Amino acid sequence: MKLYGFWRSLAAFRVRAALNIKGVPFEETTVDLTKGEQFADSYTSVNPQSVLPALIDGDGPPLFQSMAILEYIDETHPQPPLLPKAPRDRARVRALALIIVADAHPLVIPRIRNYLGKAYDVDERTREDWCRHWIAQACNALEANLASDPRTGKFCHGDMLTLADICLVGHMAGAKLFEVDVKPYPTFNRINDSCMKIEGIAHAHPLNQPGAPKRAA
Amino acid sequence: MKLYGFWRSLAAFRVRAALNIKGVPFEETTVDLTKGEQFADSYTSVNPQSVLPALIDGDGPPLFQSMAILEYIDETHPQPPLLPKAPRDRARVRALALIIVADAHPLVIPRIRNYLGKAYDVDERTREDWCRHWIAQACNALEANLASDPRTGKFCHGDMLTLADICLVGHMAGAKLFEVDVKPYPTFNRINDSCMKIEGIAHAHPLNQPGAPKRAA
Repeated sequence: MKLYGFWRSLAAFRVRAALNIKGVPFEETTVDLTKGEQFADSYTSVNPQSVLPALIDGDGPPLFQSMAILEYIDETHPQPPLLPKAPRDRARVRALALIIVADAHPLVIPRIRNYLGKAYDVDERTREDWCRHWIAQACNALEANLASDPRTGKFCHGDMLTLADICLVGHMAGAKLFEVDVKPYPTFNRINDSCMKIEGIAHAHPLNQPGAPKRAA
Repeated sequence: MKLYGFWRSLAAFRVRAALNIKGVPFEETTVDLTKGEQFADSYTSVNPQSVLPALIDGDGPPLFQSMAILEYIDETHPQPPLLPKAPRDRARVRALALIIVADAHPLVIPRIRNYLGKAYDVDERTREDWCRHWIAQACNALEANLASDPRTGKFCHGDMLTLADICLVGHMAGAKLFEVDVKPYPTFNRINDSCMKIEGIAHAHPLNQPGAPKRAA
């Protein structure tokens, strides 16, 4: 498979982690978001929406939207499964993932920060406060759910790694990039630590990609 | 089943439509977002995240996040299916849905508009411009995909109603609430018209719910 990604893209991190966990070989092409390469013809011909990631599997048209790609990878490479079997459990896993994928991450991506700067003359520091606010809101929601639900285990849902965990480690990476104080979220921290011990996830981490700044993850 | 919703909630519209299409009987409890009822104990005990919708099926814990709920409804009530069978087709349907659910809708909900007003002193008219901008961005992405992909049919993906269509009609309802010019999106309009001819969708529409303003949909 061929992944279009970028070290800093948390959505690309999700897909990279899933491919590693499933043992699917892939090549990654860098689309440098800081240079605006997502708007170049070479990428808009792959994904006209100019967002990362995109995944190409064989001759098929490009796949896009990270959650849809994760489900696709799980359906086409069932082992190890990234969703539990029972519909109610699957719903919880997907809901936890969507707190991150839908309620938090879309608010902190470059195009939003750029719009805030241009339309409201919001400076970089204040834009980072915006990002920290929405990341923390999602941390609150995650921690409340994870800490109170008896179905939480070593990972978000029992002791099985799922889509929710893959999204959770991405959210932690984002929280650290934006210097959010994550101490108030012990369950979130504990599950992130469990996930980061998995080689396929650690290797996929933003700070372990080409182009990332040299500092501790 | 028991749905917690509100006439104006586009995410509740999605769930209401899916339940109607599947022929699943449900009761709806109104959580008035304009009165802040999502923050009352009576609702935070159901969904601590204070967002709509939530769905209760039997004795189980509440289900939340509309996309996760749609998948749950489809898994527990398979007829008529809301996802195609082939993984690549399912991925396209989910990706189209997520353009709306993840990339557009989270940007226009009340808590975002409230934050813009409080943090940046952005007035109501300018906040509505923000909403129109992000709704139109998603319209552009949807139209580009739908108009160029030969898999588009009467509905988003062939002639079968899917999760993507349910999200699409919600996006059109949002576009009209915020008075976005939707004329530049002929495929989006055509598919919305096809969907609105389906009784279960038309009945679920925001403007056909208790408390909605009296005007033409």
